[in-house]
Formats: sequence, structure tokens, C-alpha cells
Amino acid sequence: MNSFRSNLRISAIKPKGSFRTPKSLIPRGPRHQQPLDFSSSKARPTNPSRRWQPKQVAASAFAFALSAAIVNFSYAQIVHAQSPPDTNSKNQPPRFRLDQVRSHGRDAEEKWIIKGNKVYNITDWIPGHPGGEVILRAVGGPVDQYWNIFTIHKKQEVYDILDSFYIGDVDPRDLVDGKVPAEQLADPFKNDPKRDERLIVHSARPFNAETPEEGLNAFITPDDLFYVRQHMWVPEVFEASHKLVVELADGEEKEYSIQDLKKFKEHSITATLQCSGNRRKHMTDESRSTNGLQWEGGAISNAEWTGVRLRDVLKDAGVQIDDLPADIKHVQFEGAEAYGASIPIEKAVDQFGDVLLAYKMNGNPLAPDHGYPLRLLAPGNVAARSVKWITRVRLSEEESTSQWQRRDYKCFGPNIGSQQADWDSAPAIQETPVQSAITSLRDVTPHSAQDSKLLQVYGLEEDSIAVEGYSYAGGGRRIIRVDVSADNGRTWHQAELLPDTAKGAKAWAWSRWRWVLPRQQAGRCFVVKAVDEAYNTQPGEYEPNYNFRGNLTSSWHRVGYRAKPP
Amino acid sequence: MNSFRSNLRISAIKPKGSFRTPKSLIPRGPRHQQPLDFSSSKARPTNPSRRWQPKQVAASAFAFALSAAIVNFSYAQIVHAQSPPDTNSKNQPPRFRLDQVRSHGRDAEEKWIIKGNKVYNITDWIPGHPGGEVILRAVGGPVDQYWNIFTIHKKQEVYDILDSFYIGDVDPRDLVDGKVPAEQLADPFKNDPKRDERLIVHSARPFNAETPEEGLNAFITPDDLFYVRQHMWVPEVFEASHKLVVELADGEEKEYSIQDLKKFKEHSITATLQCSGNRRKHMTDESRSTNGLQWEGGAISNAEWTGVRLRDVLKDAGVQIDDLPADIKHVQFEGAEAYGASIPIEKAVDQFGDVLLAYKMNGNPLAPDHGYPLRLLAPGNVAARSVKWITRVRLSEEESTSQWQRRDYKCFGPNIGSQQADWDSAPAIQETPVQSAITSLRDVTPHSAQDSKLLQVYGLEEDSIAVEGYSYAGGGRRIIRVDVSADNGRTWHQAELLPDTAKGAKAWAWSRWRWVLPRQQAGRCFVVKAVDEAYNTQPGEYEPNYNFRGNLTSSWHRVGYRAKPP
Repeated sequence: MNSFRSNLRISAIKPKGSFRTPKSLIPRGPRHQQPLDFSSSKARPTNPSRRWQPKQVAASAFAFALSAAIVNFSYAQIVHAQSPPDTNSKNQPPRFRLDQVRSHGRDAEEKWIIKGNKVYNITDWIPGHPGGEVILRAVGGPVDQYWNIFTIHKKQEVYDILDSFYIGDVDPRDLVDGKVPAEQLADPFKNDPKRDERLIVHSARPFNAETPEEGLNAFITPDDLFYVRQHMWVPEVFEASHKLVVELADGEEKEYSIQDLKKFKEHSITATLQCSGNRRKHMTDESRSTNGLQWEGGAISNAEWTGVRLRDVLKDAGVQIDDLPADIKHVQFEGAEAYGASIPIEKAVDQFGDVLLAYKMNGNPLAPDHGYPLRLLAPGNVAARSVKWITRVRLSEEESTSQWQRRDYKCFGPNIGSQQADWDSAPAIQETPVQSAITSLRDVTPHSAQDSKLLQVYGLEEDSIAVEGYSYAGGGRRIIRVDVSADNGRTWHQAELLPDTAKGAKAWAWSRWRWVLPRQQAGRCFVVKAVDEAYNTQPGEYEPNYNFRGNLTSSWHRVGYRAKPP
Repeated sequence: MNSFRSNLRISAIKPKGSFRTPKSLIPRGPRHQQPLDFSSSKARPTNPSRRWQPKQVAASAFAFALSAAIVNFSYAQIVHAQSPPDTNSKNQPPRFRLDQVRSHGRDAEEKWIIKGNKVYNITDWIPGHPGGEVILRAVGGPVDQYWNIFTIHKKQEVYDILDSFYIGDVDPRDLVDGKVPAEQLADPFKNDPKRDERLIVHSARPFNAETPEEGLNAFITPDDLFYVRQHMWVPEVFEASHKLVVELADGEEKEYSIQDLKKFKEHSITATLQCSGNRRKHMTDESRSTNGLQWEGGAISNAEWTGVRLRDVLKDAGVQIDDLPADIKHVQFEGAEAYGASIPIEKAVDQFGDVLLAYKMNGNPLAPDHGYPLRLLAPGNVAARSVKWITRVRLSEEESTSQWQRRDYKCFGPNIGSQQADWDSAPAIQETPVQSAITSLRDVTPHSAQDSKLLQVYGLEEDSIAVEGYSYAGGGRRIIRVDVSADNGRTWHQAELLPDTAKGAKAWAWSRWRWVLPRQQAGRCFVVKAVDEAYNTQPGEYEPNYNFRGNLTSSWHRVGYRAKPP
């Protein structure tokens, strides 16, 4: 079955659910002259692309589905029977060249997109697009690359909406293997910076890469090795012209330049950012397959962030932070590339919450990958809330409506698959659970000068093993103990929590730890688990804590060990 | 070996560690005329009880221990050789009648106590007593009943201190089976109220009792069934005369009567209190023996508390709660019965922390067992910080020095026994981890009118099982999901979180949950585990999370099930 037919069949299913269809979307009835409905003669006749009506196609598809169950008609027979208008032939919808689609871009009156090999006129849909004006970035060309990023589109109700705007196909002369070739696509990633080659790349576009071992084995992660989690492209923004808009609950807006912000009292905090997918691969390996980038233990890094307190800026903008009105429950953030997220107002205004509008990282201006020139930094919360290239702060009764708030960053029970998930029933991840991982496990010997210094510290003289790693809990909850085992959890010891120089009102930074033990005490499997100051601890097993998104994997980290032959 | 000798041997060991010996404790040398040291003639000769000097006894004991290793001397021979003064006979220390000890009570110049069958003059020790003036409650009689409460005394350095004040023995005519008989003891518990007989009592004095199933199966625990955790007795205090003193960091004091406090804005919150020992017996049963009362799952209850915010009172007393001085890190509390504890200042002043000075529980004045007329209520923290009968609030750079802050309420790793515990290395429990338990598991049948109503709600028509319980997390972290299993954790389902009417800035109250399943789906073991809003979850196993105090047991609660024969 070709894709045209399968698409038509899908469009016969009714939209449902929470992705609301604005009135502007409901087809206004045929606008153009056509054989089946002469009442359409009032519609604008000047746009040939609208002549071919999707509603009739849907009806024909329904007829097709029914008929096909009885006898094998050819597709041409069915379409011909319904006689839709056709600029090219009796059997086919209109065809458009890529240049023609390109002329219906951001600045054109009528705005078209391509999805697969089909063309849609979405002019009427743009004002009602739940994702806002980011949709303009895609018009005049294929939308697939954006849907691969904004995966919220990949569901039936969205396909249905799109189908209602179908106007024809891309001319086959412009297709290669049935698709628009890559070199014809506009490159939304053209502003992406060059990255350090030591980063362990999970996806190039958008760029997602974890910190290598050498970056994880230090309290402060070097800027170049800080893990990168992009949901889209790096936007082109400049410190001199960048503006932050604070939108109050009544809709009033206050605008701040970076220079305006720098007039507030400056604060520095040391805070760990961790992707909700950190250690997802461990869950996949030890339980079942999960949806998402298969991060190992390096989707986490630690830096000193400098900026001004969001609470001070909110106060300045007129928010009564000590006596909040009941209609302010969340603070939403928007990034210049179209990302959005929110945090609860309690976190935003907490005098010990340390939420920053940050412009420096480890004393340097933010790198482009980390939000230059301005980002939010909500320490203790999942990194997905620390919106980069921040352009807007909005006080609201509601959470951000973005897919990263309402969908992706949630967890479900071990019994729930992606098809059963009721996204509204699970809260958006904010604070994260207690976590730890082994980042280094190496033989140390008294025969090496450097090793023997380390062994002296631990009062050891024999061949030994040095185990190191990180431990971290969300919410600023300090790590109070790290238990380690060299025999797969049968017996336990306490690792040394390494001293550090973390700044902040709470424990926003990871705690690095070390354990050095005689090699003869090592079994085949090392394990680590941490305890935070609320005495929460990590679960041992993966399967009972499985979630199909593989988010917040925090079961004990196990690492195999086999002594080198002497 | 009799107890006198064993006591003497112990006294030869030197005091050490953190229980500091004040200067006043160091024996000032013999004060009374005695054969061995005539330089003692300067000391007050009027008090016959001081004539017999413990230091010499310690020396003789050391000699005895040495000698006994060579040849079997009789005790009488040794003591005789050293010739201590003796009011009764050549061989024995002085003997005192109980009446004589009683005359050295709270109002006497010289204050004596009895420990076991020995008498001590502790006059010089009182000013340096780390526990403060509560020691006066014991003078003039036996101290054993208090040491059973203040177990911090039961260690070598304290025995050593006590030995240095030894003055003689209780006259055998006043002993029964070598002990002071119970009816001769002053009763510190004379003010304890009558309690509901349905409470499940773990100790009568002090009174400790858990909530029975009927109390656990409601969102609000009835006052009479609210679990009771006393560290001592219920003090005799009255609303009209009760005073709360707020002691500022510079030592300045502000005093508030209950009437004064009631002038502040009143707040009501719904908050669960949970003893750190809740579910300790589950750890003992599934792992190893633990120290402490063997609570099952009922050392937890939920009530609506009404009072005024501590932060408002602190502000009134002159504390700059928005710009705290660096030397204020903790807020210490003292109860009228001598209990003490503290919370971090961040919790005390948090605008969303809801820390109350509470005078009502479920709309009624506080019951005597729950702190009448005034208690602290630090929601989200372990109940041990919510000091009852509160008399003093002290701003300090230090935590409370009480044993309940510095010792008892802490946890260690599974490899640490009571002898290895370095108490200073573990933080005092404040917020508690995510927790859940099954409180009811019953067969329901469509043949019962009441059951069939329940079955209808869950769309069931067959014989079924209704499982209910609580879930709770410290720190105001909302319970977002309760996973239940009827096959010992092999497969999972989500329980229904029952709606409630909790009040407060955060989720301070437990969430009750219910699961109803067809009886044929039930295996032999039901399990529950909860997830809080930081996506912390409970560990599955007990042994890897064992701590010898059995505190904060939160591993999965498992309950066996066997279907009744039809």
C-alpha cells in the first residue's frame, strides 16, 4: 500500500484527546469550484493549491477501506469514481515543485509545509498552533526534521489535523527515493558550535553527548566536557541585543537586557545538572527496552554558575514574593530556540532555592551549548527545567504547555507501556531522586610512585583497587553516606566523601567519593548506593522500578571487575 | 563476683570521648580525716557521707585485679589491707537508710542519688550535668528508672564519673532482692493520663503505644488512637500559666504566654507524624535484631494541627528571618519534661515550611499525651523534632545537645554495629524517606451488601480482596504513585490514591490508598511501594539497608495472604 493511501485511511479516524482543535482548524467547507459541491463557489478561486479538497479524500478513503474488504479494487478506480479535481491527471492529486513550496515560506501570505512527500497549506492553522510561532521556522519546506524533534506531533490527532490541510504532493522530479533530499532542507542547526571530540555523542542533530570519564572524575566538570543535551538547535543570540521579558500574571510585561540584570546582586552557586535520562542504558540493559537516548552514566556534570536570583528579578518586576496571589502557581520559561518548561513558584521564590538567571559558568561567559548569553539555573531540579537562551519568564496558574513539561519528562509504573501511559496522571519531573554511579575503577600498585602516594593515604601497602564515582540527590538534599560493595552487595563498606568547595544555600552539587581496597578483597562485581539527608536511598533492582521512558534510573550501579592476570 | 567489686574494677578505666568532664567533677581530693591521707583534714568534716573516698577504692580494686590473678584473696582481706573508713564495719563501705537518702533531695544542700544499691553524693556534679537541671528530678532517690529513659548514661565514661561520687551503699534492710523496691520510688509518671485501651502498648513507662488498625484505616487518626511516643513522663503543665521563652542568639529572651501567642495569625495544617522507629520490627524480622521498641507499622498517625507559625513568632521576637545572621543555623526546642531537639533554621523560617506552635489537634485542645497546652509541629520532619509541652525556643549555631538529637535518631550503614557507630559522623534525622505500608487486607464478597457497594466502584462482581494502606514522604514531598503487587513483586499495579482534604503549603499528610482485585488474582504475598514527587522510591530488600537502630525502616512492606477455604 503506498503512503498516500495509508495516509487517507488514517484521516478517517476522528481526532480526540487533549490536543485541542481550534475553531480555525475546522474545515470551513469547500472554497473552490469542484464537481461534487457547487456551493463552494463562494470560496477564493485564486489559489490553485486549494482546489483539491481533503474532506472528500477522507470520505473516499473510508469507502475504500470498506470496499477493499470485499473485492480488490485498484486505487485508481476508487479515486476516479469520486472524481476530485486534479491539475495533473485524472488519477492523482496536484503536484508542486520544491521551489513553489519554498515561495510559501515565513514571509508569504499562504504558508505551506511538506511532510514526507505531501504538501499542506497550514495558513489557517498557524494562529491555533499549540507550540506557538516556532512553526514558522518550518514553513516553505519539509517539517519532518522538526517533528523528529517535537515528537509530540507523532500521534493520530495531529495527523488528522494535518490531513485536513492537504493540498497535493511534491513533484516526483524533486524527490530522491521518494523523499526530499537532505541537501534541499533548510539547516536549523547551522548555528551549532564546534564541540570537544572527547564528548561521547548520542545524537548529532540535535546534539546530545555525555561527559567522558576524564570529565566525570573531577568535582568541577571542565566547560568543554560538560554533557550537552539539546532538544533542538543552538539559536543565534547575542548578549548586547538579548532581552528577557517577565510576563506577570495579568499579562503585563517587563523587559530586562543583560546589562539591566547585572545590576542585581550577583550570586554564585555550585550545582550539578543531570538529564532525566542519565543511566537510561543501565535500565535498558538490566530490565527492558526504553524510549530515548541511551545515556550511560555521563549525562550529568557539575559547574559553578554565576548570575542573579530569579526571586530578586521577580520582586523587581512587581511580584509579591512574600505573599503570593493564589493564581500564581508556576513560573514558565521560554528559550530562544523554542524550548519551554516551568518550575513551581515555591521553588522560584524560595530564599534558599538559589534559582538563578545565570550568565557565567565556571567564571566564563556561558558557552553557546549551555545557554549563552543567559540561562535559567534551577538547582536541585532535573536539568530540563533550567531553560537555556532564556527569553521569557511567565507567571502562571499552569505549568508550561510544552511537551517537555507535559509529556517526555515523566515516569510511570513498571506495568505501564507507552500505549497505556496517561500523561496527565503523572507529575512533571522536578526534583530528582538520590543517585550514584561508579565513574572509575582502576588497579593501583605500590610499584607506581603516584599510586603509592594514594595507597599511603589509605594505609595500604599491597596491590589495590581505587574506585571512584559521584553521588547526588535533587532538592538540595546532601549526600550523607555512600555504601560500596566489592561482592555484588553481599557486604558493604562506606566510601570516603571527598571534600569540596561547593557554594550555595543547599547541597546543589554532587559529592564525589572514593574507596580504596586491597585487590584480594575484590569480587567480580562492584556496587554503589547512596543515602541522602532525608535518608532516601536507591533501590537495588531495575525491573520493579522500570519505566518505559527510562527516566530517573537510579537503581544500584553495578560494574563488573576481573583482575588482570599477574 | 559481687556487684561492688565489679563496679570498682570498672572505675579503674579512664574516662574518654565526647562526654566532657567539667572541672567541677574532678575529685578535689579527700575532704575528710582518714587514715591514708591526713592532708584531707582541710575538707568539710560535717558530712559523714563523704568520709569514704572512691579514689582509694579504685586503687584497691586495681590491686585486687592484679592480686587475684596470682592467688585467691578474699575481698575482705583486700579492703582491710587498704583500711578505708567505715561507719558500719571494718569490711564494708558506709550504709545509708532510704530515709536518709530522701533527705538529700532537691531542696537539700547536699544532693544524693541511688544507683542500684549504691549511694552517690552528686552535689558537685549538678552544675556540669550536660542534661541540665532535669537531674534534680532524680535526687533523693534511685536514678535507675531515669537512666532507663536517658540511655545516654549507660556507657563507661558516665559510670566512671558516677563512681567518683560514690559514698556508700543502701542499707540492706531497705532492699528487696538487693534492690530498692518499686513502691519506694518516686513516681515521675504520676501525671500520665489514662489511655485508650485499643492502643497497642510497647512500653508502659515511658508510655509508648502504636495506633491499632482501626485508627490507621482513616485519613484523620482519632485523637484517642493517635500513636503515643513518650521519652519520659507527661509533665504537669497548665495553659493559663504556661510560658514559651524565645532565646535569641545573643542570649536575650522574649516570653510569650499562650494568650500572647494566640494574637498571631492562626494556621491549620494537616500533618502526619511518624516515629523514626516505625516499622522497626519489619527490619528485625526480615534482617537482624535492632535496638529499640519493636514498632510495627502503627507508629504513625495523621491529624489537623492548629496554631501560629514559628516564623511569625521569631520575627516578632526580633529575628531577621529574611536576612539571617550567619551564627543562626538551628532552632533548639525544650519540652517541660526535659526533652530537647532542634531543626535547621531554614525549615523554621521557610514561608512554605508551615512550622507551627500548635495548641489544637483536630479542633480540640491538645491531649496531654500530645503536648497540651503547646507543642512544636515541624511537618515533614521526623516526629522526634516536634517537641511537646514546649517551654523554650533557642536560636543557635549548634544543634540541640540532647541525646535525641546527637545520638538516638541517626542511621548507619548495614556493616556498622552499635559498638562501631561514630555518632558524630551521621546527621540527625530531619526529613524522612518515602514510606508505605499495608494496613488492611480483607476479603470482600458480592454477597455482602456493604462489600458489593465497594465492588461496584471497582467494576467487580466476583469475590475480591480489598487492600488498603498509607503512603507518606518527609519534606512535604507528595506521594505521586503507589505500586502494589499480589505476587510478591513479580507483577505490579497502581493503587488508587484516596482523595482527602489535607491543608498546608506542602503535602504534609499521608496519602491513603486502596486496591481491590479479584480473589483469584491473589498470590501468597502482597507488597506495596510508593513513589514521591522527587521520584524517590522505597528499596526492596531489608538487609542492604539494615541499620542497627532500626530507624527509618522503609523497605517494601510485604504481607502474607492465604485465601480462606470456601
